[in-house]
Amino acid sequence: MQLERRGYVKAGPWTPEVVVEHPEAVRQLHREFLRAGADVMQTLTFYSSALDIGSEVPNITCQQINEMACDMAREVANESGALVSAGVSQTPVYKGRSSESEVKAIIKKQLEVFLRKDVDFLMAEYFAHVEEAVWAVEVLVTSGKPVAATLCMSPSGDKDRVSPAECAIRLVRAGAKIVGVNCHVDPTQCLQTMKQMREGLDAAGLQAHLMIQPLCFHCPDCTSEGYLSLPEAPFALESRVLNRWDVQKYAREAYKAGIRYIGGCCGFEPYHIRAIAEELAPERGFLPPASQKHGLWGSALDVSGRPYLRARASRSHWENLKPASGRPLCPSLSIPDV
Amino acid sequence: MQLERRGYVKAGPWTPEVVVEHPEAVRQLHREFLRAGADVMQTLTFYSSALDIGSEVPNITCQQINEMACDMAREVANESGALVSAGVSQTPVYKGRSSESEVKAIIKKQLEVFLRKDVDFLMAEYFAHVEEAVWAVEVLVTSGKPVAATLCMSPSGDKDRVSPAECAIRLVRAGAKIVGVNCHVDPTQCLQTMKQMREGLDAAGLQAHLMIQPLCFHCPDCTSEGYLSLPEAPFALESRVLNRWDVQKYAREAYKAGIRYIGGCCGFEPYHIRAIAEELAPERGFLPPASQKHGLWGSALDVSGRPYLRARASRSHWENLKPASGRPLCPSLSIPDV
Amino acid sequence: MQLERRGYVKAGPWTPEVVVEHPEAVRQLHREFLRAGADVMQTLTFYSSALDIGSEVPNITCQQINEMACDMAREVANESGALVSAGVSQTPVYKGRSSESEVKAIIKKQLEVFLRKDVDFLMAEYFAHVEEAVWAVEVLVTSGKPVAATLCMSPSGDKDRVSPAECAIRLVRAGAKIVGVNCHVDPTQCLQTMKQMREGLDAAGLQAHLMIQPLCFHCPDCTSEGYLSLPEAPFALESRVLNRWDVQKYAREAYKAGIRYIGGCCGFEPYHIRAIAEELAPERGFLPPASQKHGLWGSALDVSGRPYLRARASRSHWENLKPASGRPLCPSLSIPDV
Amino acid sequence: MQLERRGYVKAGPWTPEVVVEHPEAVRQLHREFLRAGADVMQTLTFYSSALDIGSEVPNITCQQINEMACDMAREVANESGALVSAGVSQTPVYKGRSSESEVKAIIKKQLEVFLRKDVDFLMAEYFAHVEEAVWAVEVLVTSGKPVAATLCMSPSGDKDRVSPAECAIRLVRAGAKIVGVNCHVDPTQCLQTMKQMREGLDAAGLQAHLMIQPLCFHCPDCTSEGYLSLPEAPFALESRVLNRWDVQKYAREAYKAGIRYIGGCCGFEPYHIRAIAEELAPERGFLPPASQKHGLWGSALDVSGRPYLRARASRSHWENLKPASGRPLCPSLSIPDV
Repeated sequence: MQLERRGYVKAGPWTPEVVVEHPEAVRQLHREFLRAGADVMQTLTFYSSALDIGSEVPNITCQQINEMACDMAREVANESGALVSAGVSQTPVYKGRSSESEVKAIIKKQLEVFLRKDVDFLMAEYFAHVEEAVWAVEVLVTSGKPVAATLCMSPSGDKDRVSPAECAIRLVRAGAKIVGVNCHVDPTQCLQTMKQMREGLDAAGLQAHLMIQPLCFHCPDCTSEGYLSLPEAPFALESRVLNRWDVQKYAREAYKAGIRYIGGCCGFEPYHIRAIAEELAPERGFLPPASQKHGLWGSALDVSGRPYLRARASRSHWENLKPASGRPLCPSLSIPDV
Repeated sequence: MQLERRGYVKAGPWTPEVVVEHPEAVRQLHREFLRAGADVMQTLTFYSSALDIGSEVPNITCQQINEMACDMAREVANESGALVSAGVSQTPVYKGRSSESEVKAIIKKQLEVFLRKDVDFLMAEYFAHVEEAVWAVEVLVTSGKPVAATLCMSPSGDKDRVSPAECAIRLVRAGAKIVGVNCHVDPTQCLQTMKQMREGLDAAGLQAHLMIQPLCFHCPDCTSEGYLSLPEAPFALESRVLNRWDVQKYAREAYKAGIRYIGGCCGFEPYHIRAIAEELAPERGFLPPASQKHGLWGSALDVSGRPYLRARASRSHWENLKPASGRPLCPSLSIPDV
Repeated sequence: MQLERRGYVKAGPWTPEVVVEHPEAVRQLHREFLRAGADVMQTLTFYSSALDIGSEVPNITCQQINEMACDMAREVANESGALVSAGVSQTPVYKGRSSESEVKAIIKKQLEVFLRKDVDFLMAEYFAHVEEAVWAVEVLVTSGKPVAATLCMSPSGDKDRVSPAECAIRLVRAGAKIVGVNCHVDPTQCLQTMKQMREGLDAAGLQAHLMIQPLCFHCPDCTSEGYLSLPEAPFALESRVLNRWDVQKYAREAYKAGIRYIGGCCGFEPYHIRAIAEELAPERGFLPPASQKHGLWGSALDVSGRPYLRARASRSHWENLKPASGRPLCPSLSIPDV
Repeated sequence: MQLERRGYVKAGPWTPEVVVEHPEAVRQLHREFLRAGADVMQTLTFYSSALDIGSEVPNITCQQINEMACDMAREVANESGALVSAGVSQTPVYKGRSSESEVKAIIKKQLEVFLRKDVDFLMAEYFAHVEEAVWAVEVLVTSGKPVAATLCMSPSGDKDRVSPAECAIRLVRAGAKIVGVNCHVDPTQCLQTMKQMREGLDAAGLQAHLMIQPLCFHCPDCTSEGYLSLPEAPFALESRVLNRWDVQKYAREAYKAGIRYIGGCCGFEPYHIRAIAEELAPERGFLPPASQKHGLWGSALDVSGRPYLRARASRSHWENLKPASGRPLCPSLSIPDV
């Protein structure tokens, strides 16, 4: 979504060919997230599987994208000690039980590239049906690499209404070492889902690391269908964007909930990731490079010539602020389309 | 502000040393604006004059920044046929009539670099007092290059309550070929100011091109002090950010008002600039490169598998939408501090 | 609450002695509800049981209030063919199982007056614990009169978390012919509670009439504690008040849900009750007297001299309107205190 | 408007025949305002002049209404020491200069009744054109009674854009002892208008008492056309209603501005009038009768059994509260129709 705002990716098809067409833009974004404190460079391979099944850019293949995406993630990760993770996501061929072999074949083909590029760990992400995610995990674990798995679901469960608790159990039993959620709903709802996942795992006596990558949009009006059903998606979501203080609050709550892989999905920008790193600096023991250009809790304002700006150089100002929308003709919630 | 969000610039002092410290980040941002349709690369020399008067980075000089900023702007501009403009802004030494020679000395020193780098035209921007802006113009016009001049003011006039009409007249009489406003208030208020400037010039029988570079934040609650007086500035402005459709509307109104240098200031991202280029494509005769990754008026959604997303592939959806803030505990307006 | 706004009742203690002190005000309000289409005059005996247990007006007894309240309700009811209902409500002596005899004694004492005054039916209302409500019903049914029973609860159940379904079952088994909810939450939440009550009764094979008397305030932010926990209660609820079109919508939904005793609690004014009567006029077969002074769906505006007012003489205008608060500094939801 | 909500008056034509049809309802409302602290009973003769020019109730005459209205106002006023004021308002025959004699004839006819009933003073109210108001004052002063005159205008002036300052001057020169505004806009805008009136009178060396009767609705989005142009008028204004604390703030500001006839127009209920009397109790030296049923600044809540309600028994709670609308799908401002 950041690359869309920078002019490189088309919203709607979310064109992964940017990796081949504009590597400098992708590399720059990786670097910004690294500077912001990210421990993992996730390869931009999202939805690349869709490319071989009818694309606007027939001369760019999924394999080509995946290879370049891995190379770039590694290149930037090596600038500090970050890890590289390569991901597969829901496939366009999934249509229930009968599609198992087809889905697995697509995942397997992507895995071959990831292994050749020797990424550090693997990820099955943005799956809407736990069944398909389990298949992906089953393929990925054959590599011997650690596997993470996330579903894009609300607290009411996956597309087939399988509960978060049950989803977590199935993914761990399939071999995932890290399980969680990504996309579709906001931090508040993601945290509710994670609570259910954790309780499910505990009740089943299973162990796994927990992972969370919510939207960077406030969407309390979301139904189980996720934020795409809101009339603002995807081109008028600005007014819903979390600020850095919202993100710090989210990061703290995620940490308290026992989650240790804490990140973000659509809408997250480098400064949002930095906010996670800053909030958890006491636990991590260090601040990220980008914090050299950021006063914690607005402290850089204390050099301002304006007294009212200096007065905002305080945690209490930012923590208690109820930011106005500047849009008196607009409501605070929308009615989702579905 | 974009570079702040990317982790390279410190809000508060708005550290221009980024030009020297992270040229790749500045170059990338220039390139994104170019792809978005910008006709002018403005050198990142804003506030650099402050550096020589006590800075956090004593080993980086104003001259060094200005030179590199010019080189980079030119390098990217040459990738297509864009112009390069170098700017000076309000100085920390201004304190009314007595400071004329001091101010002019600072401007002159910056001008020398700009001339050596042979920029295409010059800009005096972000002046709060028309008096100081006039001095800057007086220095800049000695170069023989075209000069643009903008004030950061509300419709009620500059810091000394000199009316927009009077400001425009003084700047044009001092030799500016382009006059206008930038920063501090939102498009609606900037357009009101420009209307007064235009009427003033017309009444005085003067001619000049008009220029506008508003905030990318909705701030109807701003007083003459500008958006910094709002409690959300500068770290919680997300909910006020204009979306692309807001920008198209603004661009059309600016064009109708006879303004031909149409841009943006704090908060503008590449896709906002693209929105200006797309709105004015009929007049300009072409779309910018970044529009290859953007369906006009949401048209790229018509390939979506979800019927409700396809239904949003229409101008009427986006033009009539009243986007929700997703923040039911927040108001729509704030009380400014001053 | 209406009498509070008219200056006769003190918010907080909700002083029922108004019946004795200002009968003309009570009588007038009864008459307005009658004109608005009410089929039942409910005696103003709410909380009168509190009076004998330490009151600000020691020379006015509960019995005196109850007698006068019955007389006035009957007097006005007789102006058309309305029924008179006398109600008892939660007592200050309730403290769980051990208090049964004490509670029943208070109810019994009130019942004696109601029987002497020969009201048409009896009501146990505003009970927070179904246990106490069942005791009230047990006392009231000894009279042989029909008994209605309502709890002030949210969809999550009574104060002891007994579910709405279970509450309904217990009340009907205790002899109530009409069961439902009143007060504490808004129409939307009350309708959710009623749905559960109905399903509970159906599942248990029990039959009863259903009754609903919600708040006239929009309170989607209410927790199970009810609207009193909102910071606006009870002196700043104006911005939450339902308009007549909101009430028509509520009345229709209540009717569709099989509810036939449809009314209102705190905040309802005569024109709100008229809105119920107007919405259900097709089913009832007539309009109430007060509709002589009301054009349905704004139709009286069609005689206006202003074209824009005439344009509002339509159902679609009022049904689709999203009324503004006129308060841009205020949020749309609050955080309840508990 | 109160009588509309009670079911006696039809919005749109605002049927003054209620005086004849339902005197008990009118008398009761008078009495409530008296108890709330009103010093003046204004006869319900508003718009009665319209009746003789084609009415829905041909057997009720303007004279009949005016006579009964005077009798009732006097009857209630005599219950304490209140004054009776009878008013005339804009006439349906006004059409500029040529209509002077016609307008004056209508006013004169009404005046005859008022004199026969010996009211204490006279009022020309709800005039949109100062020209017509001046004519009314010219007729009324012939009686020898004190005359008050109010215009329904915004701070931008009357219907013909005559400034508030000029309007005040003309009315005082015509003989009015009290001048001011009523209706159409909210307290904030009315206070702005009054400031201009006062400055105009001061500059002209004229003396008069000042009077203000604003709407009881928050309407910052009103244009000079007044609140009727808002899409919520007249049937969905609930969310805009001032609460008692808003009214206290308004009363204080009006008093500070030197205004001594402080009241209200559309939307005011008895408890709003009481709020004026309570705010100005230190100046008046007493509380009104209805304050016996009202704890100042919420103090009656200190007897509540709920700790969070007791915590609201304080001035700071109510003064600082930003009341939520409970309507997250609604905006805070509307676009007026004109």
